[in-house]
Amino acid sequence: MIIDCHGHYTTAPAALQSWRDMQIDCRGDRAAMRGKSGPVIGDDEIRESVENTQLRLQRERGIDLTIFSPRAAGMAHHIGTEEMSKQWSRVCNDLIKRVCDLFPDNFAPVCQLPQSPGCSPANSIPELVRCVEELGFVGCNLNPDPSGGYWTDPPLTDPWWFDFYEKLVELDVPAMIHVSNSCNPNFHFTGAHYINGDTAAFVQLLISDLFERFPGLKLIIPHGGGAAPYHWGRYRGIAMDMKRRAPEALMAEGLYFDTCVYHQPGMDLLTDVVPVDNVLFASEMHGAVRSIDPLTGHYFDDTRKYIDANPRLSDEDKEKIFCKNALKVFARLGARVSA
Amino acid sequence: MIIDCHGHYTTAPAALQSWRDMQIDCRGDRAAMRGKSGPVIGDDEIRESVENTQLRLQRERGIDLTIFSPRAAGMAHHIGTEEMSKQWSRVCNDLIKRVCDLFPDNFAPVCQLPQSPGCSPANSIPELVRCVEELGFVGCNLNPDPSGGYWTDPPLTDPWWFDFYEKLVELDVPAMIHVSNSCNPNFHFTGAHYINGDTAAFVQLLISDLFERFPGLKLIIPHGGGAAPYHWGRYRGIAMDMKRRAPEALMAEGLYFDTCVYHQPGMDLLTDVVPVDNVLFASEMHGAVRSIDPLTGHYFDDTRKYIDANPRLSDEDKEKIFCKNALKVFARLGARVSA
Repeated sequence: MIIDCHGHYTTAPAALQSWRDMQIDCRGDRAAMRGKSGPVIGDDEIRESVENTQLRLQRERGIDLTIFSPRAAGMAHHIGTEEMSKQWSRVCNDLIKRVCDLFPDNFAPVCQLPQSPGCSPANSIPELVRCVEELGFVGCNLNPDPSGGYWTDPPLTDPWWFDFYEKLVELDVPAMIHVSNSCNPNFHFTGAHYINGDTAAFVQLLISDLFERFPGLKLIIPHGGGAAPYHWGRYRGIAMDMKRRAPEALMAEGLYFDTCVYHQPGMDLLTDVVPVDNVLFASEMHGAVRSIDPLTGHYFDDTRKYIDANPRLSDEDKEKIFCKNALKVFARLGARVSA
Repeated sequence: MIIDCHGHYTTAPAALQSWRDMQIDCRGDRAAMRGKSGPVIGDDEIRESVENTQLRLQRERGIDLTIFSPRAAGMAHHIGTEEMSKQWSRVCNDLIKRVCDLFPDNFAPVCQLPQSPGCSPANSIPELVRCVEELGFVGCNLNPDPSGGYWTDPPLTDPWWFDFYEKLVELDVPAMIHVSNSCNPNFHFTGAHYINGDTAAFVQLLISDLFERFPGLKLIIPHGGGAAPYHWGRYRGIAMDMKRRAPEALMAEGLYFDTCVYHQPGMDLLTDVVPVDNVLFASEMHGAVRSIDPLTGHYFDDTRKYIDANPRLSDEDKEKIFCKNALKVFARLGARVSA
């Protein structure tokens, strides 16, 4: 079984974004909005929206299941009020639930949170609980920078976030640490803001005792861990200089990287330096890069090929990366698959 | 000849930082400061400050020359006024000049700029000109984020910076794009802010036409290019999706990465994916990481060893990385060495 732990609903019907645009135009004033409770989208439209994209690519690449969440850039927590983020998250999560109900063998749901700059992450707990307990979601995406590129909220290791972590542990669901769109002209969203968000989060965790404080907490850093594997020596050295435990030990406490790395040398590096127990297969499709690499003739984001082609990974390693680690981290999915 | 293109004066006598502390305490009010024109530091103190650190490590590692600049985190452009940055830059640059005059065979000078958040980079031109034309400096460090981690100034590709680039081209000196300390608790300075600054700068350049606009402009992104080589496939794909030229073509226009990557797999990746014509040897010593790697028994930052150990690099490649590229990029140093 091959599980892609990082897919976004980037191909949602246009009515979703139209609704969001209206919400932004009305500044969230429900009285002024048509379709207050969300866009009207039929099941056929949903089927169509994934049939020739996610589902076709799953089949072509031999992926069995994608852990599926709302479009990351679409979360845009920096836009509007916390109340607007609540409405918007609910709409997006309900739509993800419908995709997963229509294709239960192909998708497992992960939710967006109603974060907002300067607002306590604890305020996201009700939507998390609704998604996990009522709708059967198996995880969430947690934005470490709701400001969209100005990084004005406290780091992930600050008590600011602790109530939310407590709930994650209680529900036994992981969070993928994933920024959203950037409204800072210094950061291209998929090119710089995503990767920098990953790297910042990794270093915050490296120099903290967060996992000791929250045993059972499971966090995933996407996009191959940002810059961390490439600078593994730097991080090992910084940890030593600061008398902190090594990056490998940090990972063992509950930290995972996904495999959204779009070339062979990068993927080889990732699996060479990061323990295979902490690597989760992912492609981020339909996502950040949609072109075919002229050097290989394959899609850049067909990440399975790079793992298949790595001679240093044993069959057992590959089984962990492709499936076993994901079923362990997404424990609610694991329980469902076993049953 | 082996040239380390990225060394900082991290071992300066304590009087330097004391002077800076006094300047900050006095909010730059010269009337209130003792030693308005700078700290009193004797030649012997300078000799002592580098003898057992930079010079010893140069000898042990077989490095002939270090391109030497003030401590990067010490620049702290976010502290105080532009006038304070001007005073502080002058003090730091004058001290670098003295180190290089005392050890002309071991060090070549690169300057700090009196940047300040929200102040035009053009205001740094007089100090650049003074350093290059009067003091013989061969380059400068340009901070892409004078705010120290909040990224409130325009990206490097904005006209905001153009007058400064024009002067760089006219003087034929390169700029190393190097952030300073972080005052944002989200970013550990050497772990996250430095690497993220590199990655942000790379992507800004990738999606711009800056080098077409300024032929002859030469920029160096330190720390192995941030996350760029690890995510080379991502960047090749993003460039294709955006109909921009490929990263390799961008590099050929005047962009260079240094080799401050502190483990063998990372360094191998760098030289596998980035054209060797665009890689400059560097160690950042005495710098970000001071420990010995227990896996190798060598200092993490002894980057020469990783290059020596790479069997895929020819002798010609190594000569470019160790020396020839640096003499080309730092043209004023090249002219001096030839003479």
